[in-house]
This record gives sequence, structure tokens and C-alpha cells, in this order.
Amino acid sequence: MKKDEPKVAFFVTGNIHKFHEAQAVISQFGIATAMLNIEALEIQDDDIKTIAKTSAKDAALNSDLAVFVEDAGLFVKALNGFPGPYSSYVYRTIGTRGLLKLMEGISQRNAYFQSVVAFCNPFQKAQPMCFEGRVYGKLSLQERGERGFGFDPIFQPVNAQNNRTFAEMTTEEKNRWSHRALALEKFAKWYEHSPREKS
Amino acid sequence: MKKDEPKVAFFVTGNIHKFHEAQAVISQFGIATAMLNIEALEIQDDDIKTIAKTSAKDAALNSDLAVFVEDAGLFVKALNGFPGPYSSYVYRTIGTRGLLKLMEGISQRNAYFQSVVAFCNPFQKAQPMCFEGRVYGKLSLQERGERGFGFDPIFQPVNAQNNRTFAEMTTEEKNRWSHRALALEKFAKWYEHSPREKS
Repeated sequence: MKKDEPKVAFFVTGNIHKFHEAQAVISQFGIATAMLNIEALEIQDDDIKTIAKTSAKDAALNSDLAVFVEDAGLFVKALNGFPGPYSSYVYRTIGTRGLLKLMEGISQRNAYFQSVVAFCNPFQKAQPMCFEGRVYGKLSLQERGERGFGFDPIFQPVNAQNNRTFAEMTTEEKNRWSHRALALEKFAKWYEHSPREKS
Repeated sequence: MKKDEPKVAFFVTGNIHKFHEAQAVISQFGIATAMLNIEALEIQDDDIKTIAKTSAKDAALNSDLAVFVEDAGLFVKALNGFPGPYSSYVYRTIGTRGLLKLMEGISQRNAYFQSVVAFCNPFQKAQPMCFEGRVYGKLSLQERGERGFGFDPIFQPVNAQNNRTFAEMTTEEKNRWSHRALALEKFAKWYEHSPREKS
């Protein structure tokens, strides 16, 4: 065990933007993040915790490495949680405009973004651990802003200055509010003090 | 091997309505259908063939039985295929009314239902086989009919008398058109002549 070397956390993702977002948060805790671009099982389930845990376990057992995954979704109250765990598919098909159309004439516009980081160590019984982040807010009446990705242009977090959407914020500013940053921070705080792997 | 006993096909499903629909089609080929209510892996994928194959393989290997599963979705052209593989979730959250709202003002209303039956024999290399059925049609302007389930009240198959929706047809009539019946028939025709398991 070499105590002076930084700890490394293996992030299973094929999304370079997600990777950079994670790296920025996790590096604050003196932890290096490595991108592990391997296939991980992604199941269908209404609960993204279940989806993330299954992915983490599958990736850990297949790679023989302690790894983490991150899964997120936007849950709209008036739409019974839609698009939820399938936010990425819904974004690719009907997009932000489709979601706004579904919300036409609906005054109850509450929604939240949920992020789950699941970590799994294949050498310790392979029981995945979950770290969750949520940010509550409202859907805007129209798209605003060019930054971020996915449904960012129509999501206004609670207490955001001037009702700005995620897409109107810099990455730094968004990371102060974001569900993903929150979940990653919880994970990093725990991982920082977790026992090292044998080397 | 007892040639006078009917062949049995094990259908992995928890949905009794689906089971009865399958039984009605398959019995025409002198095959008995058994309902196997076990958990089967359901992955996320844009192609329901991939989802069905993975489910069938998982269920076959876990049960040590040759089994089939059935997966289906409604693909709307103007919505880039939405709701597709997630039709069941979309139905449970935004429902037929949500889908009609998304289609407001859109004159291109073409859509199809796709059904995939995947069969897997764990003793023969466990390579799943697929049987597909599709029915083309249009989304109606409003819900019509009380029969069937899911998006049936807003789907009019091409050439249906008086532009009737699936929900305005009897089960017998629907089975003459339906994607599911078509896929099940293809499967039953093949299964009828496939070699029997050792007994």
C-alpha cells in the first residue's frame, strides 16, 4: 500500500461530458478519476437506484475492479414522474419541446432531477452502495439558455437567481446546485476515507 | 419421448391477459402454453428485439427450461419512434391523453405496433431466436373504444373497417390484425415442427 499515491475511482461511462463533470467534483477530495468505457448492464425499472446498483455490480464483476456508475432522471410531478428513468430516451425522441407541449395549460410545474451514484467492490461481497442527490425546481414555460445538456434549458432550480434555468448557468454555478454534483460529493466524501484496495 | 402428448411452450410473463392472448393463438397449433411467472431481466435498448432476446436467455438459463417471452411497443413516426420500447412506462405515466397531446397539430399520424417473441433453449447453446409481428396504422384524433389495453383506444390499423381502433374490436377480430398474434403465430409454426426435448 502506497499512502502517498492518490486514490483512484473508476467511473464506468461512455459520456465524456459526464466524466469531466465527475472529475471536477471528485478531484476536490484528492481523488483521481479514471474513465472506464465498458458496457454495463442497464435494466428497466421505475427506480433509478435499482438501475444504478445493477449496472455497478455488473461492471464490477465483469472488470474485476471497484467501480462507480452514475444514473440520473428528471421527474415531473404533474406527469406522474415522467420521463424519470427514461429521460435520456425521451430527450432523444420528443425532446424539450415535447415535454413543454405535454405541460401546456398545466400550472403545477414542480419537478426534480435525481442523480444516483452506485459504487461496487467485487472483492467485498459485491454489495453496491448508493449515494443520491436531488434538486427541486420548476419547469419553465419555454427553453432558455444554451449551456448544459438534456432538459437543462427548461429546468429552474428552486431559489435560482432570476428564475434562471440550468442552461443559463456556468458549469461552476450549476455544480453548486446540481443533483449530480451532490451525489458525487457524497460518494467522494465516503470514498476518501474508505479502505484502500490491496496493491 | 411420448409423441401423443401435446408439446408445451413455457411463456415467461406475469401478465394474465397476455398469457390468455398467447394461449388462444398457440393452441391452434396443438401446442399447450404454460405460464411461468418468474423474474426475467429487462434491459434498456432502443430495439425491442435486443430486449426480448436478453430476457429469454436470462429466463432460460435461470429456469433450465426452454422458454419464450414477448415484448411489444408502439412506434410513432412523427415522434422519432416514441414511446417505443418504453410504451408500458409511458402509458402508466402520461397515458393515451399525453400521447394525443403530443400529437396535437401534427397531421402525419403514422405509427406501428411491433411485437417480438423470443425463444431460448438453455440446452442448445442458448442462442435466442426471434419472431416478429408488426401492424401499421394511424393514431386517432381521440380515444375510442373500451376493449383491449394500453394504447389500443388510439390506434387504427390500416384497412380497419370504419377506421375503428383496436379498442373497438373484439379480441377475435383484433387477433386477425394484431402484431402480437402475428409474432406468436410465426413462433408456433416453427415450434410445432421443432425437435422435442428429451423427457
